[in-house]
Amino acid sequence: MASNKPKILKVDIKDTVFGKDCVVSDMVNIYGATFGDNCFVGPYTEVQNTVIIGQNVRIQSHSLICEGMTIGNNVFIGHGVMTANSRHPVAGAEEWKCDPPHIGNNVSIGSGAIILPGVLIEDNAKIGAGAVVSKNVHKGEIIIKFNESLNKK
Amino acid sequence: MASNKPKILKVDIKDTVFGKDCVVSDMVNIYGATFGDNCFVGPYTEVQNTVIIGQNVRIQSHSLICEGMTIGNNVFIGHGVMTANSRHPVAGAEEWKCDPPHIGNNVSIGSGAIILPGVLIEDNAKIGAGAVVSKNVHKGEIIIKFNESLNKK
Amino acid sequence: MASNKPKILKVDIKDTVFGKDCVVSDMVNIYGATFGDNCFVGPYTEVQNTVIIGQNVRIQSHSLICEGMTIGNNVFIGHGVMTANSRHPVAGAEEWKCDPPHIGNNVSIGSGAIILPGVLIEDNAKIGAGAVVSKNVHKGEIIIKFNESLNKK
Repeated sequence: MASNKPKILKVDIKDTVFGKDCVVSDMVNIYGATFGDNCFVGPYTEVQNTVIIGQNVRIQSHSLICEGMTIGNNVFIGHGVMTANSRHPVAGAEEWKCDPPHIGNNVSIGSGAIILPGVLIEDNAKIGAGAVVSKNVHKGEIIIKFNESLNKK
Repeated sequence: MASNKPKILKVDIKDTVFGKDCVVSDMVNIYGATFGDNCFVGPYTEVQNTVIIGQNVRIQSHSLICEGMTIGNNVFIGHGVMTANSRHPVAGAEEWKCDPPHIGNNVSIGSGAIILPGVLIEDNAKIGAGAVVSKNVHKGEIIIKFNESLNKK
Repeated sequence: MASNKPKILKVDIKDTVFGKDCVVSDMVNIYGATFGDNCFVGPYTEVQNTVIIGQNVRIQSHSLICEGMTIGNNVFIGHGVMTANSRHPVAGAEEWKCDPPHIGNNVSIGSGAIILPGVLIEDNAKIGAGAVVSKNVHKGEIIIKFNESLNKK
């Protein structure tokens, strides 16, 4: 069967403002974002349009920071963290409401956590690895997953 | 210690048929697949051999569409969605049974969901972010994860 | 707003020893690791400093093998598996304790599993897709997640 030629979107860093002393891996896809001073971004990470990130934020490999998010200062985001800004994603939707999460200061998010649309994670909260966060997390709260290693077959 | 030189496999788009008006990010690894018209594939995504995808399908970044899968029309696949086709994967297995998931039309799969081997997700179903889908999902069903933000320490 | 120029870290294979007959995808970030014979590493995978991996180990795409880990022989690591070596990650920490997981021989780890710091996974264990492993797993144990496809809305 004959194939059409797809349009190729280049993975790149574009239209983004960085503060001082930032370190960014290559193979990242960052567009339309703003970073404060002293941030780090690991490889295979996407940071989307209008994201605003504070100072001293570390975003590890394989993570997605979705359109519209704000992230405070001194935040750690682990490897493979996914964030979402659409409650009812549909392929080819002409319109959709962008309802991103927001993350305060001094927050740590463990690897593989998933942060759902509209969630507010307040200052000093800690999110355990693999947690799926569907409600707001208050100041200093610690959210952990069920211990699934007890769920033996 | 002396190192041998590994064989390097190039990440690329090869042996794949695309319909009209497809958009594909670079840094994807797509081989032996077939796409209908008007599909989108985000960065860091792998689509494996013999996969057949319909029209108007959006596959977001960081996802894996495994060998043998079929995906209908108007399907949304979120970021970091993993699919599996081997019930008992073993390193170096000479033989293995390829038992892929199949996804119908108008399905939406949230970010970070994991779709296990042999699962059939029927038309109009919705899979929440972070769900691990180990059984068939019937027409129009909505599968959500436990609300783990209630599981406070 | 004027942007500073971030320092770009190149994604690469460096300072790593490979045994015979290894196959490695490109777009991997591997540094300071040691691999035995006949290993495979899929694309978008990071293997960090001081990791020691045995023979006949398959690491699928999108996975992270963190600093300090040891992995035995004949191990299968699925797609999108995340591992962690810091119990209390903090952005910009000057000091942190590296407490990596360790994985024995003949272990299989399903896609999207998350392996927490300090966990020992003993020989012949199997970890299901999407499991979050927070405790040691003994010889031959099988760890599965709750069946979340039963959790219908």
